[in-house]
Amino acid sequence: MSTAEQTAGEEGPTWGEVTPDAARRLLIAAVEAFAERGYHATTTRDIAGRAGMSPAALYIHYKTKEELLHRISRIGHERALGILRTAASGEGSPTVRLADAVSSFVRWHAGGRTTARVVQYELDSLGPEARAEIVALRRQCDAQVREIIEDGVAAGDFEVLDVRGTTLAVLSLCIDVARWFNTEGPWTPDEVGALYADLVLRMVGAERAPGGEGR
Amino acid sequence: MSTAEQTAGEEGPTWGEVTPDAARRLLIAAVEAFAERGYHATTTRDIAGRAGMSPAALYIHYKTKEELLHRISRIGHERALGILRTAASGEGSPTVRLADAVSSFVRWHAGGRTTARVVQYELDSLGPEARAEIVALRRQCDAQVREIIEDGVAAGDFEVLDVRGTTLAVLSLCIDVARWFNTEGPWTPDEVGALYADLVLRMVGAERAPGGEGR
Repeated sequence: MSTAEQTAGEEGPTWGEVTPDAARRLLIAAVEAFAERGYHATTTRDIAGRAGMSPAALYIHYKTKEELLHRISRIGHERALGILRTAASGEGSPTVRLADAVSSFVRWHAGGRTTARVVQYELDSLGPEARAEIVALRRQCDAQVREIIEDGVAAGDFEVLDVRGTTLAVLSLCIDVARWFNTEGPWTPDEVGALYADLVLRMVGAERAPGGEGR
Repeated sequence: MSTAEQTAGEEGPTWGEVTPDAARRLLIAAVEAFAERGYHATTTRDIAGRAGMSPAALYIHYKTKEELLHRISRIGHERALGILRTAASGEGSPTVRLADAVSSFVRWHAGGRTTARVVQYELDSLGPEARAEIVALRRQCDAQVREIIEDGVAAGDFEVLDVRGTTLAVLSLCIDVARWFNTEGPWTPDEVGALYADLVLRMVGAERAPGGEGR
């Protein structure tokens, strides 16, 4: 399946925050090109061509190819952080908040998997400064999930041997959805979100009250 | 960190089955180049250069760049299948076999992560025939894990709502280790293997007998 076909079935990001329109079109073209051929195999000429623009027109908006990757990565990570922060700061019990964090994070990785793949797999292609900024955003994502798990342990709702390792495993499980998820496959993003929320609650040893809150 | 530094710390594959020596050196150079720059950004000239050989010498052993990727992917998947098959056909209970499958599969993805990344992330770069062969090997990997889980459910040792989805999640968790594992990080491959075996036994609702078999 081509990336164009893949993106056609995606709910993915709308990149509404990127203006003007030409800058947004170039960014979307860059996401598709990076996902299809990899960052290093993509030229600014390829990206301009996909957006139906000239290389000169691209340079008005982005000085380098790395600037495009940096912008994509920053917007992607800010959105991921927003999703996790909303779940973490919810009013429900740790069980409800963890299920919410997992299902919404999974839906984002399944529904917008072309973007998610670029955001998750091209981290090493960023220069040192950009990379440091993105790593800081990733630490904040990690902290949101860790906080919910710590709250669950403190409340006696979860039974966890290694909070740091379990946090990493929960995020890893959600992120890898971007690798395997296929719109032609047997599951919708919502179904994977629900399955994974259940599996993660098992991982943290959440109390299971049949018919209870959030289950 | 460069790929050379990454591979330096790896237990990874020795590629002993690839002969003669020149063919093996070229294969190792291709793994490093694909992991560092991506398949599409790597030329056969790059690979020959890394192996200290001429492009003409490369063509004696491999007709195309795709042939190299196909060979790497086949050997990698055969090894993955071997690891899972050994665990699945063991003599212990489903709990012991599942813990064994997960910890050995995790160790392989952590210890040989440069190879694992190429094997797991460049699947779409293979041509249709090679891809079909690799997909068949992946289905066999999947079947090994599913069989253990089905055995555990049949024996009343596991409580699983969706065997197919849980199988996929277990494999996904192990595979993603190749993305995040870092030899500079806080865990050894063995430690991640033990942590993940515990998390997966929780995911399948395995009976926990403190001090019991395999725990």
